Amino acid sequence: MKKLINEVANVLTESLDGFAAAHANIVTLGAEHKFIARKVLKPGKVALLSGGGSGHEPLHAGFVGHGMLDAACAGQVFTSPTPDQMIAAADAVDTGAGVLFIVKNYEGDLMNFEMAREMSGRDIETVITDDDVAVENSLYTTGRRGVAGTLVVEKIVGAAAELGADLKTLKALGDRVNRSTRSMGVALTSCTVPAAGKPTFDIGPDEMEMGVGIHGEPGRRRVALKSADEIAEEMVAAIAGDLGQTGDALLFVNGFGGTPAMELYLMYHAAQTQLAKHGIRPVRSLVGSYVTSLDMAGCSITVTMLDDELARGWDAPVHTSALRWGL
Amino acid sequence: MKKLINEVANVLTESLDGFAAAHANIVTLGAEHKFIARKVLKPGKVALLSGGGSGHEPLHAGFVGHGMLDAACAGQVFTSPTPDQMIAAADAVDTGAGVLFIVKNYEGDLMNFEMAREMSGRDIETVITDDDVAVENSLYTTGRRGVAGTLVVEKIVGAAAELGADLKTLKALGDRVNRSTRSMGVALTSCTVPAAGKPTFDIGPDEMEMGVGIHGEPGRRRVALKSADEIAEEMVAAIAGDLGQTGDALLFVNGFGGTPAMELYLMYHAAQTQLAKHGIRPVRSLVGSYVTSLDMAGCSITVTMLDDELARGWDAPVHTSALRWGL
Repeated sequence: MKKLINEVANVLTESLDGFAAAHANIVTLGAEHKFIARKVLKPGKVALLSGGGSGHEPLHAGFVGHGMLDAACAGQVFTSPTPDQMIAAADAVDTGAGVLFIVKNYEGDLMNFEMAREMSGRDIETVITDDDVAVENSLYTTGRRGVAGTLVVEKIVGAAAELGADLKTLKALGDRVNRSTRSMGVALTSCTVPAAGKPTFDIGPDEMEMGVGIHGEPGRRRVALKSADEIAEEMVAAIAGDLGQTGDALLFVNGFGGTPAMELYLMYHAAQTQLAKHGIRPVRSLVGSYVTSLDMAGCSITVTMLDDELARGWDAPVHTSALRWGL
Repeated sequence: MKKLINEVANVLTESLDGFAAAHANIVTLGAEHKFIARKVLKPGKVALLSGGGSGHEPLHAGFVGHGMLDAACAGQVFTSPTPDQMIAAADAVDTGAGVLFIVKNYEGDLMNFEMAREMSGRDIETVITDDDVAVENSLYTTGRRGVAGTLVVEKIVGAAAELGADLKTLKALGDRVNRSTRSMGVALTSCTVPAAGKPTFDIGPDEMEMGVGIHGEPGRRRVALKSADEIAEEMVAAIAGDLGQTGDALLFVNGFGGTPAMELYLMYHAAQTQLAKHGIRPVRSLVGSYVTSLDMAGCSITVTMLDDELARGWDAPVHTSALRWGL
């Protein structure tokens, strides 16, 4: 295993220390590394709280700030954060208007966020993201997995929260963004979890995993590596077929960590061409490694169908370490 | 070779097509894929033009936009763009106040930018970046290599150009930012150039290349992989020793493409600790994969000593696809 680390046991805390220091104008680090919180809270605003296993950076801590999350809880790599982290974070950022949990659909995350909700005594609603069309149930989920579409939910709900929407409204909006969003991924290589010290899965030099999850979980099938156009064709067909809609959309091409920007832009071009065949027109774009799987090579395609309300939410000002515009 | 591509010959053009489509609100693509230009030019402003081989994305096209570059010319992977690209780009973005070339110190780039300057007949000055302290001469350079510090030059000079500084002033400022900036890199793996189809260099499973260049060129030495703290100690000592200054600085931890954000933030933490020993205090930060070497795992550390003028230039609004704040 080749990684820029010291002791495996300290990877998460040293990384969070660096993150908090590098972005001290935007965030603060909670005691005992329990959470990253927005530096300046907005009294009366519903607090948005997310989290999950580490290894997907910049998700979620990179999205803490104005117009997006109020706090993010990081577990160990690919391991759910604990309820006490979520309770401490909610205590730190709830200014009285309640808390919205945004949770990717994995059993460990769901269980711990639900336990935190019950124990905290606060007014809490939960949006569960499950945008991955690759598989219906999987290694760590009942139902579909929550993947890169979670960023879109956090962005659009974050914008509405900033404008003063109440907890029930935000819960309904989050569910609607999730329903308007589909994703699918492909892996060319495995990731390597520091504590494991070896690749999560074996994959041949000419193979790819279609429909891979963001922890390297199996997807639809292991097949021979195809061209970018063929990969985009299959992924877009799965996404568009499941959406069953035509019209304006956000096209988000997400790198898993080990894939260069050149390839992501090439995939954007390929995906855009395929979407046209399905009557979907990208009017907003995001390209980059935002919801990663450590050093895994590959990418995912996410499509969110946009109406005026969702487009406005996407365009609204945001000031986080990983997404920043209009401020 | 596992890459998300179609034909090797079309990687650059398809990637540029995707880039131009994804960021159509910021950039336009020149005829025959010769350059990426800022969509809305500012009459009377000195035009900033950079470029180089592809494979370092988002450098340089990702830095085209308000407050940074007016145009960027992309060559094939790790291959200089040609003089006719630079002349076409200068023709497209020069609004009468002249053109500043910002060129990384590589022989091919220098030769072609110089030829373009002579042939264009325009009023052109050139800033050459050579921030890499690892080696004095190298595979492709006489003198030091220009690496991630080029981003800092483009940002700070771009801010001054936006405020109306003239060509001579910008040339002097660019040289000053370059002199205030030092970088050093480390590679854990090689990159793979699409046209070559195999890794640029061989490296053992327990080795790293200290002082590596951004094309995988040899650095100072091949040694056994060390801890992040030990790596940061050596890199910061080389940078701080060469700078010979103490005080406030920008600390920029740059990923080479294959290294997760978790590790980059861990390295930021380690570098900050080491800088304190040399009397250098990071008051501005940038962490991410901005000046890459395709899929190479590793990172570089860049330090720019800041006075009030340089800090203002760094903080000034910027609106490009890869760097965006204040707008």
